Amino acid sequence: MNTPRKRIALDMDDVMANLSHKFLDHYEKEKGHRITMKYFWDNDIYSTPDGKRLRQCLFEPGFFADLPIMDNCLEVVQWLYKHYEIFIVSAAMEFRNSMPDKRDWMEKHFPFIHWSNIVFCGDKSIIDADYLIDDHVKNLITFKGKGLLFSAAHNTNEKRFTRLNNWLEVKAFFEGELKKDAS
Amino acid sequence: MNTPRKRIALDMDDVMANLSHKFLDHYEKEKGHRITMKYFWDNDIYSTPDGKRLRQCLFEPGFFADLPIMDNCLEVVQWLYKHYEIFIVSAAMEFRNSMPDKRDWMEKHFPFIHWSNIVFCGDKSIIDADYLIDDHVKNLITFKGKGLLFSAAHNTNEKRFTRLNNWLEVKAFFEGELKKDAS
Repeated sequence: MNTPRKRIALDMDDVMANLSHKFLDHYEKEKGHRITMKYFWDNDIYSTPDGKRLRQCLFEPGFFADLPIMDNCLEVVQWLYKHYEIFIVSAAMEFRNSMPDKRDWMEKHFPFIHWSNIVFCGDKSIIDADYLIDDHVKNLITFKGKGLLFSAAHNTNEKRFTRLNNWLEVKAFFEGELKKDAS
Repeated sequence: MNTPRKRIALDMDDVMANLSHKFLDHYEKEKGHRITMKYFWDNDIYSTPDGKRLRQCLFEPGFFADLPIMDNCLEVVQWLYKHYEIFIVSAAMEFRNSMPDKRDWMEKHFPFIHWSNIVFCGDKSIIDADYLIDDHVKNLITFKGKGLLFSAAHNTNEKRFTRLNNWLEVKAFFEGELKKDAS
């Protein structure tokens, strides 16, 4: 009898899809100059009136439809898919119009992941999985499995979780896990 | 120290929202005569070419926006909300356009339930909760908590789960659970 495959939950924004990149494009278009995500978080731009206004773009239909894929994400998710049960878990619920866009984005870029394995939620404590890869500490804190922190400008000082800086490090981490599981 | 509240996951279609009622309206409009859900399931209408064509309505924007609320659902969910952590868990992912409609429907009819407690998914085995109220046996089979079968025309012969015929029976069931938990 085969052992059931372990389950990995993957966050979308700034883990699979480069939301920050598009947001900074939007910032540049509106403000006339480009900033970095580090500058953005160091200066808590979302709390300023300007930041609040710019954040409205996240509510617009189409905003999430054409985000770039993060480097090496496609190849590594294809590899993970051979060894694990993969669920996509995005806290999309705040943004009413993002959901059809995100579902289309998955179908376009990751057609091998069936819609039945996609989850749009808010509070990720409802998710039952063995691993969660996420850039937001709040999601990892309530997660009962092994939380893996995907590096982002807003989490550089966080020390409580295994950190994965990019998708090649995701692959290396799970190569290690598969070896441990096999031994 | 307070014990954390137990968590109930509630299905939407044909548990909170009367999808069958609207579907039968649609059937009548297209075919010129009304049928019952019992007739619909007994004759496996979804497998017929006609049924497949009629089912396309589920993919249309707006179809899920104006479903009637099931009898006594609002009052009982308001009551449950005082005693339990409530999550809404709908297998909406097949229907791309249903998601904004379903989110709006929740905001309109159940504004006390925050968007962070709404989940749209496909395979409900990802859900971590103490109870799941659902009309589909496939969702209860993979659920690790206590599965509660909400009666519908397609599940009348099912015997494996505690059956709740309507929202008044939901209330009575949880009154019993609260008494047990308190003793």
